[in-house]
Amino acid sequence: MSDSNNQSPDLEPSSKKIKINHENDNTVSENQLELKDFILEKVLNNNTVRKQVCLQGKFRDKSGVALVVLEKNAFKNEDLDSKGYFSVDTELKTFFQNDIYGNYECFPRASINGIKTSITYPATEKHIAKFSQQETHIVLETPELYQKLTLPHIEKEQFNLQWVYNILEGKSEQDRIVYDNKCEQDGFVLLPDLKWDGITKETLYLLAIVRRRGIKSLRDLDETHLPLLKRIRDEGKKKIFEKYQVPASQLRVYLHYQPSFYHLHVHFTYLRHEAPGIYAEKAHLLDTVIGNIEMIPDYYKKATLPFTIREMDNIFKVYETNGHVQRIVKPDIENIELIDK
Amino acid sequence: MSDSNNQSPDLEPSSKKIKINHENDNTVSENQLELKDFILEKVLNNNTVRKQVCLQGKFRDKSGVALVVLEKNAFKNEDLDSKGYFSVDTELKTFFQNDIYGNYECFPRASINGIKTSITYPATEKHIAKFSQQETHIVLETPELYQKLTLPHIEKEQFNLQWVYNILEGKSEQDRIVYDNKCEQDGFVLLPDLKWDGITKETLYLLAIVRRRGIKSLRDLDETHLPLLKRIRDEGKKKIFEKYQVPASQLRVYLHYQPSFYHLHVHFTYLRHEAPGIYAEKAHLLDTVIGNIEMIPDYYKKATLPFTIREMDNIFKVYETNGHVQRIVKPDIENIELIDK
Repeated sequence: MSDSNNQSPDLEPSSKKIKINHENDNTVSENQLELKDFILEKVLNNNTVRKQVCLQGKFRDKSGVALVVLEKNAFKNEDLDSKGYFSVDTELKTFFQNDIYGNYECFPRASINGIKTSITYPATEKHIAKFSQQETHIVLETPELYQKLTLPHIEKEQFNLQWVYNILEGKSEQDRIVYDNKCEQDGFVLLPDLKWDGITKETLYLLAIVRRRGIKSLRDLDETHLPLLKRIRDEGKKKIFEKYQVPASQLRVYLHYQPSFYHLHVHFTYLRHEAPGIYAEKAHLLDTVIGNIEMIPDYYKKATLPFTIREMDNIFKVYETNGHVQRIVKPDIENIELIDK
Repeated sequence: MSDSNNQSPDLEPSSKKIKINHENDNTVSENQLELKDFILEKVLNNNTVRKQVCLQGKFRDKSGVALVVLEKNAFKNEDLDSKGYFSVDTELKTFFQNDIYGNYECFPRASINGIKTSITYPATEKHIAKFSQQETHIVLETPELYQKLTLPHIEKEQFNLQWVYNILEGKSEQDRIVYDNKCEQDGFVLLPDLKWDGITKETLYLLAIVRRRGIKSLRDLDETHLPLLKRIRDEGKKKIFEKYQVPASQLRVYLHYQPSFYHLHVHFTYLRHEAPGIYAEKAHLLDTVIGNIEMIPDYYKKATLPFTIREMDNIFKVYETNGHVQRIVKPDIENIELIDK
């Protein structure tokens, strides 16, 4: 299940992710692809919060589709001085001034105002779908709908969990493991999420993967899992404090529904980090999950659980065919209104 | 209760908000404040997701504190062509290239690469606190802690609800009302949230305010409120579809805990809009609330509810004094590590 709210799609397979070649750091590209040759055909997505735009087009005199993703860079500390943004080269345009408040637009010299640029060429239909803004819906999954639609779909799709078993069996990523409770019944492995660099507190993101197999998701949990869940909460928080000095009260500890893979796992993120997938329609705080099961042992077998799907997701078709959600009729992405705020 | 996750603070009182003076649109400022005279003293906050930085400093030869907020602009549609980002003036630096994927940094000419700039001068301690990054914590509020700490605090703070009553009594904002169900028992008023322009679907945000007085928050809800809650859900969704053509399945409908004011209200936002306060530790989907009460009529009187507080919030002191949360010892904001990703 993809994370419908993450409007910042991965740019490459994780194995290829942003490895800056520092030897080339100061050279201007002599690459055969040049931005001046890019001809825009469609704006696939314009994320005005993250300041990122995904574009589909062509390169002049070349065949095939090209995808260009532009994203404004975050501010760098070292540019906040009289040689950077506060230099005589920066122009200032006034919008309004009122009492002690003023709004302006400033234009620093180009060299400190870089834009992260990524090009995929030639791109396939799959690349285009990945970068396109998708219509997203909330579905309310009753226990009956879970049995009738979701469960058969999960079983049919046969998600490959070999990579999870490799971690649990010590065959891969062993150097990344932060904590390992080897109890086959209630143990778990704690390790940095692939999205995290493993260092920066501000973006802290770890994953606890349970040792016990066969617990697919939140839906399978009942009072027999309380010792497991409490162990993950308590030992997870303790180990993260020991290793990263982030106190328990500053951790967001949660499960996803639907999860991205159907082997029970728990997310730990730094409270101030706006990680993808922490929205109310997707994330369930572990403390709330424990509380619900303590009040009603079979809470998650009886509850109606909301989840979000994009129209491109396979499970959307299942719910659409059965009349539980309707496709938006006008998916003419060319005419999506762009907002500039 | 402030929204601890909204790292994009309001720049001005809402009455002063970004009114661009189009007559001055093309003039360069002749203002007495110039960025080249700004001397940085502290980085109060660096939001690397929103690409926004809040700075404290001084203007050369001027007394008093100045606050400067810089935020990269979102991409404008009209600049995505051969005169804008894809012009011969744009320089491209290569980070790496691998098969069909390439990562670069591009430097367009300064004039299309503006930065939203806001200056508050002279600034008070209150302005500084508002723009400063705050340590944030999650507290688990048991029913006992609610009775002992939260409720007395709410009652003591005596939040002024006159503006709410003015809306309900037809004394203000009547031209903004989208729908009004006048039933004193289960009626409500639906109107655009102050943060929304009332037009742009992509940032849709409405508020339903119940007519019945005395329901402070989620904590007060039980089975007697089910007709009210279902009416808000069903009529709210219906009216929003009629007026804005956003279907029910694309709406996120939720309550905040803690809320910003203690008179029951429900938020409606467009599912794809990354509105502030939609995180799992703050937002409770209305459908889940209804489901919980249907399973256990006094669910919200028995549940442990998490909520987030910042160390500057008054209620933090209440929980701190009673040993339920600990202040982070090193609030030396000067040494906050800045991330650039």
